[in-house]
Amino acid sequence: MMATGMINGVDVERLSSTIDAIKGDPGIAAFRFRATNRWDNGGHTETTIHDFYGAKQNVTHDRDFHIDADEPDLLLGKDLGANPVELALTALASCLTTSLVYHAAARGITVRAVESDLEGELDLRGFLGLTDTVRNGYKSISVNFRIDADADEATIDELVKLAQNRSPVFDIISHPVEVLVTGEAMAAKH
Amino acid sequence: MMATGMINGVDVERLSSTIDAIKGDPGIAAFRFRATNRWDNGGHTETTIHDFYGAKQNVTHDRDFHIDADEPDLLLGKDLGANPVELALTALASCLTTSLVYHAAARGITVRAVESDLEGELDLRGFLGLTDTVRNGYKSISVNFRIDADADEATIDELVKLAQNRSPVFDIISHPVEVLVTGEAMAAKH
Repeated sequence: MMATGMINGVDVERLSSTIDAIKGDPGIAAFRFRATNRWDNGGHTETTIHDFYGAKQNVTHDRDFHIDADEPDLLLGKDLGANPVELALTALASCLTTSLVYHAAARGITVRAVESDLEGELDLRGFLGLTDTVRNGYKSISVNFRIDADADEATIDELVKLAQNRSPVFDIISHPVEVLVTGEAMAAKH
Repeated sequence: MMATGMINGVDVERLSSTIDAIKGDPGIAAFRFRATNRWDNGGHTETTIHDFYGAKQNVTHDRDFHIDADEPDLLLGKDLGANPVELALTALASCLTTSLVYHAAARGITVRAVESDLEGELDLRGFLGLTDTVRNGYKSISVNFRIDADADEATIDELVKLAQNRSPVFDIISHPVEVLVTGEAMAAKH
């Protein structure tokens, strides 16, 4: 049975009615998320998040989100933003935490604080094409949560498992996603 | 043969000497990237990027990078930041672009502009646990590049392929990464 009211800042009544609506019409659950990226110089790019499609409509965010990415000096950049693999950890951390908090709310479990530390091992020889024996991306990622909640140790373990089992970004990183990349020449800009 | 000087904002001489150093001592290429995340309320979290390990030393970024994540109102959040799956697209976009620009520089190809549009399809029934027939994460992601470079169409196609073949985040998303998640109760905060 689902809890009611606001729990952990999540409106569980609205969550419940969203679930009912999707059960009645699965098309409501079909989302398309979008990003546009523009290269600046060297390792510096800016990504803009403007809108998405979901619940059968196009939805514009309250404001555009601009996210700088760059490489640190050691990787020949100007350090004007987190680098892309740090942004991958950011996506994973925020997704696991949100999944944990929303699913705790749905079960009526009050969460007071969630913190996590992430670390990913990456061998640069992959990116540089220096060997076929290492991959380009993370070899492995560790995530360590500290949770303050109205729950015993066993329930906290269960919430951490639930977060993994439901988190979209955990799935995206731990299982293969088909990525189709195309490119074309752009007319010169003046 | 590698180009020399600054190309596309990338110091290709330093890139070349980095490669030589790694060939002499592969341990230099072992990196560990890190992130810490703190939950605020509802879907809102903040991730901090502070330091990383690489080239056999711990390196602190010039400043800490703070990245808000939240969900839009339709997904029961306050829309205070891009959501985690939009951040996954951000990581992918910035990584593919940086990979393209660095590898173009290494080949002596001048790039003037790179833009890309990304879109990922996601069925919310996965996150909500409403069916076993859809995954939690993206079913597929499309990336469309527009490139202005001193290169013909065939070379641009080659650069786009090279970006995919070398990009760490492309690898992280298109192939499985082992993610180990642990959690423990935190002492209550007062």
